[in-house]
Amino acid sequence: MSSRLSSPNIQLNELGKLHHFLTLEGLKAHHLTEILDTTESFINPNTNEIKKVPLLRGKSIMNLFFEPSTRTRTTFEIAEKRLSADVSSLDIQTSATKKGESLLDTLWNLQAMQADMFVIRHAQSGAAQFFAQHVAPHVHVLNAGDGQHAHPSQAMLDMFTIRKHKGDIFDLKVAIVGDVLHSRVVRSQIQALSILEAREIRVVGPKTLMPEYPEALGVHVYHDMDEGIQDVDVIIMVRLQNERMTSALIPSEKEFFKLYGLTETRLALAKPDAIVMHPGPINRGVEIESAVADGPQSVILEQVTYGIAVRMAIMSIIMSNAAQLSQHHAEQTSQQTQEQDAKETS
Amino acid sequence: MSSRLSSPNIQLNELGKLHHFLTLEGLKAHHLTEILDTTESFINPNTNEIKKVPLLRGKSIMNLFFEPSTRTRTTFEIAEKRLSADVSSLDIQTSATKKGESLLDTLWNLQAMQADMFVIRHAQSGAAQFFAQHVAPHVHVLNAGDGQHAHPSQAMLDMFTIRKHKGDIFDLKVAIVGDVLHSRVVRSQIQALSILEAREIRVVGPKTLMPEYPEALGVHVYHDMDEGIQDVDVIIMVRLQNERMTSALIPSEKEFFKLYGLTETRLALAKPDAIVMHPGPINRGVEIESAVADGPQSVILEQVTYGIAVRMAIMSIIMSNAAQLSQHHAEQTSQQTQEQDAKETS
Amino acid sequence: MSSRLSSPNIQLNELGKLHHFLTLEGLKAHHLTEILDTTESFINPNTNEIKKVPLLRGKSIMNLFFEPSTRTRTTFEIAEKRLSADVSSLDIQTSATKKGESLLDTLWNLQAMQADMFVIRHAQSGAAQFFAQHVAPHVHVLNAGDGQHAHPSQAMLDMFTIRKHKGDIFDLKVAIVGDVLHSRVVRSQIQALSILEAREIRVVGPKTLMPEYPEALGVHVYHDMDEGIQDVDVIIMVRLQNERMTSALIPSEKEFFKLYGLTETRLALAKPDAIVMHPGPINRGVEIESAVADGPQSVILEQVTYGIAVRMAIMSIIMSNAAQLSQHHAEQTSQQTQEQDAKETS
Repeated sequence: MSSRLSSPNIQLNELGKLHHFLTLEGLKAHHLTEILDTTESFINPNTNEIKKVPLLRGKSIMNLFFEPSTRTRTTFEIAEKRLSADVSSLDIQTSATKKGESLLDTLWNLQAMQADMFVIRHAQSGAAQFFAQHVAPHVHVLNAGDGQHAHPSQAMLDMFTIRKHKGDIFDLKVAIVGDVLHSRVVRSQIQALSILEAREIRVVGPKTLMPEYPEALGVHVYHDMDEGIQDVDVIIMVRLQNERMTSALIPSEKEFFKLYGLTETRLALAKPDAIVMHPGPINRGVEIESAVADGPQSVILEQVTYGIAVRMAIMSIIMSNAAQLSQHHAEQTSQQTQEQDAKETS
Repeated sequence: MSSRLSSPNIQLNELGKLHHFLTLEGLKAHHLTEILDTTESFINPNTNEIKKVPLLRGKSIMNLFFEPSTRTRTTFEIAEKRLSADVSSLDIQTSATKKGESLLDTLWNLQAMQADMFVIRHAQSGAAQFFAQHVAPHVHVLNAGDGQHAHPSQAMLDMFTIRKHKGDIFDLKVAIVGDVLHSRVVRSQIQALSILEAREIRVVGPKTLMPEYPEALGVHVYHDMDEGIQDVDVIIMVRLQNERMTSALIPSEKEFFKLYGLTETRLALAKPDAIVMHPGPINRGVEIESAVADGPQSVILEQVTYGIAVRMAIMSIIMSNAAQLSQHHAEQTSQQTQEQDAKETS
Repeated sequence: MSSRLSSPNIQLNELGKLHHFLTLEGLKAHHLTEILDTTESFINPNTNEIKKVPLLRGKSIMNLFFEPSTRTRTTFEIAEKRLSADVSSLDIQTSATKKGESLLDTLWNLQAMQADMFVIRHAQSGAAQFFAQHVAPHVHVLNAGDGQHAHPSQAMLDMFTIRKHKGDIFDLKVAIVGDVLHSRVVRSQIQALSILEAREIRVVGPKTLMPEYPEALGVHVYHDMDEGIQDVDVIIMVRLQNERMTSALIPSEKEFFKLYGLTETRLALAKPDAIVMHPGPINRGVEIESAVADGPQSVILEQVTYGIAVRMAIMSIIMSNAAQLSQHHAEQTSQQTQEQDAKETS
C-alpha cells in the first residue's frame, strides 16, 4: 500500500462517507456499490428515462471548467438540473485568471458566492484534490477530470453500464484497449475494476502507450490485440488523443487501426455476448470500425445516458452524507450537554 | 408538384400532425392556422405580455447552434423557459466537432443525454432534416435556420404579425424586398403566404438577387421598387447580407439604398395603412430609412415579441401531438387485445 | 451643486423612489439605507447564508455584458436566481453588433423579448444612463459598471460590509488607496461615503493617479501612504489596472508596492480594529501583502458574499417600487373617476 493510500483519505468524512469525489483510490467496494445502487434508483427500468427529483433544491452548484469539454460539462449540468439544483457554469480559461488572479483566490471568491458544490475539470493532475484541501468544510468538490490523474465519474458510469449488462463485476474478464499510459479515464477504470474485484483486468496496446509497472496496477499487459481480447466479457476501447500521434508514440492512424482497431472479425474472439464500450467521442476507423460501434454488442450510447444518472447519484449521496454528518454532530453536542447537565446536577 | 413534395412528409406523424418542424413546404393551411391560434393564446391581449405556463415542465430541450445567433437563440431560450422546460444551449462550433466527431455521433450522444427536443441552426441546407431522419422516434427536431433552405419559425412569426394587424391573410398583397435569392427567411415566407393563399406575393430587387424561376414559386418579380410596392398591404424588407456586397452581386450600399431602400416617400406608394416588416437586425440607411423603421407603420419590434409566443406555440403543439399519438397507440393496443381476447373466447 | 445634480434624476420615479440604478450621484441617505436594510434581510445572521426567495418569480432579467466580467456577472446571475427570476445572459461583444446593428437597435430588440430588467456593463461611461433614457417605462436598468463613471452596486456592497463591521458610517475615517483617478468603483465609493456622511474620506496614491480637484469630491489627498492610513477605521485598496503600468503612470509593480502596498507593518498605523477591503481580484504583492489579504482584519471575501445580497436588495426594491407606483396610478385614476362622478352627479 502506497504512502498516499495509508494517509487519511481527504474525500471521506469522519463517518467514512464521501464528502468530496476526487478519485476512486482508497475507496471501498461499499462506496462504489452505493453509487451504483443509487444510480439504479434514478432510471425508469422500462424506458431508461431519467427522473427529475427535488433532492438538491436550493443547493448551488458551480461547474468550473478550466479545460474545455462539451460532453462531460453538459451531462453534469443536466444531472444537476434533474436534481433541481441552482446551476452556474464558468468557463475559467478566459475569465478571472486573465486578470492575473491566482487559482486559490478564484476558488475562494467563487466559494464566497455561496457555492455548495464545485465540479472541476482542469488540465493539471491533482487540481481537484488541491481545491478540496482549500474549500470551506461545508463545500464539496467533484473531480470531472484532472490532467492524467483521474476521471472517477466516467469510471463509475462504465461500472454501472457493465453491471447493467453483466450483473456482478466479480466474475468478469475486462480488456482495456489503447492509450493506457496517458488516460485519466483508464486509470480510474482500473481502480474501479480492482475495487469491485473483477476476475481479470487486461490492458492492450503498443509498448509506448502501456504503463511501466503494470503489476503494480494489478493488470496484465498484451501487445497483441487478438490475444488481449480473447474470451473477455467486456472490451473498453480508449480514445486515441491526436497529440499522441504527433508526438510519434504511434506510427499512424491507419497503422494503429490495423494493429488495435476493433473490427467485427476481432470482436468474434471475445465471448459471444461481450459488450463493447468507449468513453467517446469515438474516432471511427481509428480505434473502432463503424460496424462494431453501431452494432448489437455496442453499449456506447447507453454509457452516455447512464452518465447522467451516475452523476446524479454521486451528488445526491454527497449531500445526503453532509446532512447525516450535521445530524451526527447535533446529536453529539446534545449528548455532551446532557452529560454535562447530569454531572452538574449530581 | 416536385418529387420532394409528393414524398411522405417526414415532419408529420401518422395522424398528420406536426412531429418535427423543419419547413413549411408540404404543410396545410390548418397546420399554420393552429400555430397562429395557439400563439394568440400565449399573449395577453391588453398588454402584449407573454405568459409563463407549465406546458413543458420536465421536458428537456437542447438548442444546438452550429452557426452563431444571438437573436434567434435568445428568443428560443426565452420561449422554452416560459414553457417551463429544462433548457441546455450548446455552441457546437467550438466543441465536440473539434475533437473530430461526426455530426451524427454528436447528435446521438446528445440524444443519449435524454433530450426531448432539439432546436438546430446550421449553415448547411437540409441539416435539420438530416437530424430529424436520425433521431429516436420520441425526439423532436425544430429548424432554427438551415443554410439557404428554410427558417420556418421566423416566417410564422411574420404571418402572426400580419394577421394581428390585417386580419385574414387571404385578401392581402405582400411585397418582399431585397435579397430573395439567398434568403432562407424569404423562402419560408413565400411558402407561408402561398399556403395561407395571400392574394398576391411580389418579390422586389435587382436581377442578381431574384430567383431564376419565380413562376415556380408563385410570385411576381419587380425590379422597380416604386412599382413593386404600389398599393400593397404589407412590405417585408429583407436584411442585406454583407457577403453579397463583397461578392459583387450588388454595386454598393449607397446604390442599393437609392434603388431599393424603403423611404417615407416610397412608403406613400403602398396602401395608406400598409405595415412595414423586417426580420432584423436592420441596416439603417441601407435597406430602410430610420424615419420608416421607427415610424408608425413599422411593426418590426412587435415581430420580435411575437417571435417568442410563436416559438412557444410550435413547441407546445409538437409536445401535445406526441402525447395524443401515445394515447392513440395505447387505445389501438387495448383494442387489439380486446379483439384478440374476443377471438380466443369465441 | 452641479447642473447635472439639479436636473431631475432619471433613476427616480415620480414618487422619488428608485426606478433604475445607474449611479449614486443625486441619491439621498434614505435611498442607500433602504438598500442596506433590505440586504440585511436576505442574510441569515447566524450562518451568513443567503436565502432563496420568490420575490421576482415570473420576472425576466437580461444581463448584457458588453465588457467581459466573470465576478460581477456571476454574482448578478446568482442574485437573480435566488430571487427566482428568469435569467438570460448575453455576451454582446461577439454577437448582434458584429452584424452592424446599432446599440439602440440591440436594446430595443432585447426589450421586445419581454425583459423586465437589464443589467448592463459597458466600457463607455454613460452607457447605462443612455439605455435608461431609451427603454420603455416599465423596464428597469441596472448599471453593473460603465467606463470610468460608476459601479454603484459594488460601492453599496462595500458600504454594507463597513456597516456590518463598524456600525454607523457617520463616525468613520476611511482611506481609499491606489488608482483613484481612473476607477469607477472609487468614484461610486466616494459618493456613497459622502451621502452617508463619513467623518473623513482620504484618497492615497501617486499624483498621476489622483483626481485633479479633490476638494470638489470632498476628499483629502495623501501622497504618503503611512500618513494616509494613520488612524483610519477602514482601508479600501483599489485594484491596479495593468494598463496603468504600461502607460507609465506608475513606475513598476515593485516600486508601487514599496510606496503604496499594504503590509502588516503599515496596517499597524491604522486603528487596531481597522478593516481591510478590496473589490477583487487582488494582485498579491502589488497592492497588498498576502499576510494582510488573508489576515484577521481582511473582509475581502465577505464583500463577495454580501455582493450577492446587495444585488438582490437593489433588484427587489426596484420591482417593489414599480408595483407601488402602479398601485399609486390606479388609486389616482380611481379618485379622478370618483371626483368626476361626484361632479356629474351634483
